[in-house]
Amino acid sequence: MASKAVILLSGGLDSTTLLAHAVHVGYAAYALSFRYGQRHAAELDAAARIARALGATEHRTITIDLGGFGGSALTDDRIAVPKDRDQASMSHGVPVTYVPARNTVFLSFALAWAEVLDARDVFIGVNALDYSGYPDCRPAFIAAFEQMARLATKMGMEDGPPFTVHTPLIAMAKADIVRHGMTLGVDFAQTVSCYEANDAGEACGRCDACQLRRKGFAGAGVGDPTRYAR
Amino acid sequence: MASKAVILLSGGLDSTTLLAHAVHVGYAAYALSFRYGQRHAAELDAAARIARALGATEHRTITIDLGGFGGSALTDDRIAVPKDRDQASMSHGVPVTYVPARNTVFLSFALAWAEVLDARDVFIGVNALDYSGYPDCRPAFIAAFEQMARLATKMGMEDGPPFTVHTPLIAMAKADIVRHGMTLGVDFAQTVSCYEANDAGEACGRCDACQLRRKGFAGAGVGDPTRYAR
Repeated sequence: MASKAVILLSGGLDSTTLLAHAVHVGYAAYALSFRYGQRHAAELDAAARIARALGATEHRTITIDLGGFGGSALTDDRIAVPKDRDQASMSHGVPVTYVPARNTVFLSFALAWAEVLDARDVFIGVNALDYSGYPDCRPAFIAAFEQMARLATKMGMEDGPPFTVHTPLIAMAKADIVRHGMTLGVDFAQTVSCYEANDAGEACGRCDACQLRRKGFAGAGVGDPTRYAR
Repeated sequence: MASKAVILLSGGLDSTTLLAHAVHVGYAAYALSFRYGQRHAAELDAAARIARALGATEHRTITIDLGGFGGSALTDDRIAVPKDRDQASMSHGVPVTYVPARNTVFLSFALAWAEVLDARDVFIGVNALDYSGYPDCRPAFIAAFEQMARLATKMGMEDGPPFTVHTPLIAMAKADIVRHGMTLGVDFAQTVSCYEANDAGEACGRCDACQLRRKGFAGAGVGDPTRYAR
């Protein structure tokens, strides 16, 4: 029987490739998405379709109040999502699209589900190159979470394989992720990366996420299947 | 100006003493409670009253789906809450009232709010004596969470005091907590500890939480103000 793993799935390009990767290497995939007050809820419809298409064993969408704390352009309408930034601006400091402690909260829920499933493996599509400004995308953070998680649960008090947070995309450039996804048969037309996608899942083409994504397709030398809003 | 701290407040005896303690030592207290699918939602009404009574600067109750994962008697109606257990049974192994990764999830939300508030301090009322069967009440877990949290956030990339998880009750016996609360002027009649309190906040008197609480009042030599259901 395949080992179970919890896969954090936003419905974007990275986490879709991540899910395809986890299924490809043989895990029974339990995909987990969050409705956390983000503006771009179209990605959740995408996540549900993608989980089915890629053969996830189960897919759950958890509603949490993270947006209630404010502090991010992704959850607070009063903070504008930056548009048309150049590479230098995007690489400088923590962007306003950073959601406080988001990956910590997401991984904590993944840990909770993993414990109920008796799964020892969680996959998260963090990337330390393209999101260098996000503190919770760094390898040191992932290692510290793993350490904490091994102490946090019943699993950690029992025998068996240690709890592991897998980050297969962490050192890949966006173009590498696109190439890896292509070899795994991912249909990127289904994915939604835009921070301000409309209800139909069409992308703005101008936010940081859209720009990184477009650069990824260009770098991989494949056509960009993204549906952009007019 | 007083430093801000996020205080995890369930409305029980321990977390109420914790809040009184944090206010007493001079913090501006931001109390945080969770509606997480627990049976004993009466404690949330208690939490709101207690936050006001003890002078919290703000009190928020966050709704999360933790119960959707199942796996605990506190969130799953199909698992019975143990009654009338003796001390030996209560000390043996991880109890069915353990909620998978609950403290990890709670502390993650506390971290998120702390980051938005620019607060470096979080208080949690874990106790390593009375809840020795809960993996996420152990000092090693708290230390690992703190380590992880320092890497997880913008705060950790900036100067200033390090993020700290305060656990002033961790080594206290229940009777010590009662005594400490009394010196801080806590009105324990307002607190609800029972795992199966009814809507009026009346306690069953028989679950582990009720038994530990009753023992605490007896040990401290003070009358038990708990309202028990008939």
